[in-house]
Amino acid sequence: MSKKAAARKPAKKAVKIADDSARKDILRGLIKKTRFDKVRSMLEFNLQAGHSQELQLPEGTVQIDDVDNTEAHSRLHMIIDSVVNQILTTGRPSVEVPKRSSSNILYDEKNDLLLLGQETAIKAFHSLSSVTDITRLARVIQIIHDLLTGGIHGTKREVFYSDVDLFEDQGNSDAVIEDASALLHTTRNSTNIVASAKGICIGRLRLRDKSDIIDCESLGSGGWGISPMLDNIEILESDAEFVLVVEKDAAVIRLTEDRWWKKYPCIIITAKGAADIATRMFLRRITKELRLPTFTLVDSDPYGHYIHSVYMRGSKRLSYETPFLATPNIHLLGVLARDLDEYKIPEKCRLKMDAQDIKRAKEMLGEEFIINNKPWKEDLELMLARKEKAEIQALSTHGFKYLTDDYLPSKFSTGDWI
Amino acid sequence: MSKKAAARKPAKKAVKIADDSARKDILRGLIKKTRFDKVRSMLEFNLQAGHSQELQLPEGTVQIDDVDNTEAHSRLHMIIDSVVNQILTTGRPSVEVPKRSSSNILYDEKNDLLLLGQETAIKAFHSLSSVTDITRLARVIQIIHDLLTGGIHGTKREVFYSDVDLFEDQGNSDAVIEDASALLHTTRNSTNIVASAKGICIGRLRLRDKSDIIDCESLGSGGWGISPMLDNIEILESDAEFVLVVEKDAAVIRLTEDRWWKKYPCIIITAKGAADIATRMFLRRITKELRLPTFTLVDSDPYGHYIHSVYMRGSKRLSYETPFLATPNIHLLGVLARDLDEYKIPEKCRLKMDAQDIKRAKEMLGEEFIINNKPWKEDLELMLARKEKAEIQALSTHGFKYLTDDYLPSKFSTGDWI
Repeated sequence: MSKKAAARKPAKKAVKIADDSARKDILRGLIKKTRFDKVRSMLEFNLQAGHSQELQLPEGTVQIDDVDNTEAHSRLHMIIDSVVNQILTTGRPSVEVPKRSSSNILYDEKNDLLLLGQETAIKAFHSLSSVTDITRLARVIQIIHDLLTGGIHGTKREVFYSDVDLFEDQGNSDAVIEDASALLHTTRNSTNIVASAKGICIGRLRLRDKSDIIDCESLGSGGWGISPMLDNIEILESDAEFVLVVEKDAAVIRLTEDRWWKKYPCIIITAKGAADIATRMFLRRITKELRLPTFTLVDSDPYGHYIHSVYMRGSKRLSYETPFLATPNIHLLGVLARDLDEYKIPEKCRLKMDAQDIKRAKEMLGEEFIINNKPWKEDLELMLARKEKAEIQALSTHGFKYLTDDYLPSKFSTGDWI
Repeated sequence: MSKKAAARKPAKKAVKIADDSARKDILRGLIKKTRFDKVRSMLEFNLQAGHSQELQLPEGTVQIDDVDNTEAHSRLHMIIDSVVNQILTTGRPSVEVPKRSSSNILYDEKNDLLLLGQETAIKAFHSLSSVTDITRLARVIQIIHDLLTGGIHGTKREVFYSDVDLFEDQGNSDAVIEDASALLHTTRNSTNIVASAKGICIGRLRLRDKSDIIDCESLGSGGWGISPMLDNIEILESDAEFVLVVEKDAAVIRLTEDRWWKKYPCIIITAKGAADIATRMFLRRITKELRLPTFTLVDSDPYGHYIHSVYMRGSKRLSYETPFLATPNIHLLGVLARDLDEYKIPEKCRLKMDAQDIKRAKEMLGEEFIINNKPWKEDLELMLARKEKAEIQALSTHGFKYLTDDYLPSKFSTGDWI
């Protein structure tokens, strides 16, 4: 934190956001201040909504959690203890690995929970068909144990390289890593096997990363590089009223140069293009812990809409951990197809959609989550009817500061999002 | 800066590194501390070398500078004044734009200076052949003037969008932007037209970005996102003994998780893959202002060697601003082809080179700067003879901490780089 920031926030006690009442106090404070009516009503809704009631899980299901190092470690030992017991009693050790096929993964949308069904595959040391599988699984469990006890993180690629003879191909070690997560009923990140990150966070947010306190408001125009080791990150406090996820780096340049979060209290996140896993996971954490309204600013083209959908629901291939990466209540702020007329983007600044764009738009219009979202469907249909697209930067036809001084304030004050 | 960092560096006065004697004092201090003999001798060399003597430019050449806002603004007004004078006296205004062809750009390698020759093209308002050119140039000059007086930055794409009717195609506005830089005898960055950035900086470096003091040592495992608006960045101080540029994000995860710069005082920079313009420009500034020995850690494949060469010399296409992006005295630390045996990377962790790799390796072996660098040539020849490559992550076959605890310290202490 810079000296200036320290002077501005003198003796403020770090609020542990994980605490539900602290979160509610923050939201109450923000509701009073927020200048945008529509943002205010979303904050009020978030204040009333809560996840505090006890949940009744459907019979025969297990909840998957994002757990800390200690809990993951203790779950791992329970597995090992059971194998050792089998060796001592029957001499024929095996493990039952939950199946990761879509029929065995249930996503409870209302409660935002991922549940595992009862289908399992038995991997036994004494069976020729599964001895390779269980040997690989045992090796991955050993590696995860090393990572957890060493308090360090690895990547999938490094796990593969740590025993190439056994894994033969990275596809094999990747599958076994997901098996190990399912076995522990945890997310993959809980096993300290992480994916690299390319995102940046900037604006009104204070974090702790081990002993470092990071004030994302005092990092100049560069911002904080989102760490893939999110289990070390603690969200301390924020007086942001919303989160803005930006696709294009050029738009981030405008926002950061203006120190836009000073006038419009927000947290700005960018993955500089398509969303990577760590950025999505970080956004989900912020949105969930701070309960802030969240918006995307993307190009007005099918790929921009697709990027928005990845933040919202994950990529098309339903993966075991997708729901842990999704921010279901994210809104598409712009640039909407209807914005092109509304904000008078001249014909010359619009681009023709190519075959790939048209194909993607049609595919997206076939998705159930778009069919069920009338304004989104209409906007994509408008885009497809006109076969026109435009980049965020096209707004600069009205001046370099049009994005920050006119377009965004207008969008937020009219509540014109999807 | 975190409270902990503030406690560690209590009343230290911010040293303005731009001051030559302060730089020399820092280097003297580092030389005493450095544990690696070979790094020490490079620091000693850098301490003795200086750019202080008066330079004699060859006749008929002009030096291109990286200038500040005020200087760029005043050069711009000189151009306008001359045009106004022509209107008042002859009524036939024109400007002489220096040619940007390679025959008219001289790079003085010894003094690390870019010089412009006397070849010019006359762009006149009254000539049918150049009226479009000069109108575009006048418009770009107007835009640059707006950016400079507004104290804001734009991207090439935004410049194009600000007058699509006039520029018609971005290729045209890009060319005129470079013409304008040549006319002002400045780098493009001096015109406040910047390229987006994807790099991260982490470790022993303190910067100022306007009113924010950024301590890259206290940003957890995430680091500082390198800002493309480098003219706002002031390098304050550093007690690093070297700079390490890392290709792969997975390697950065290992280094940051270990807080490697605490034990081995360094600045770590990554562009997460191929080097972008802002990261190269930032690296050049650090290396030049701090005079620190600088090393790259890349994959042991032709593409890794190519990435190293881009940091060193720029991309193959010689551009007007290439020398302002290059760090000529950067060293290839690893992973060298000869390291694969030296550090016992098992056969199974090595990959076969594909046709593209072989083509690139052969192309690189035809480059004069590699032919003249015997150790580099030998290493690429060894790679090509074996047709084997390996990723940095292959080192994790010896354990997740092998890179940080064994490989890097061994490379630095033996001085085994190219």
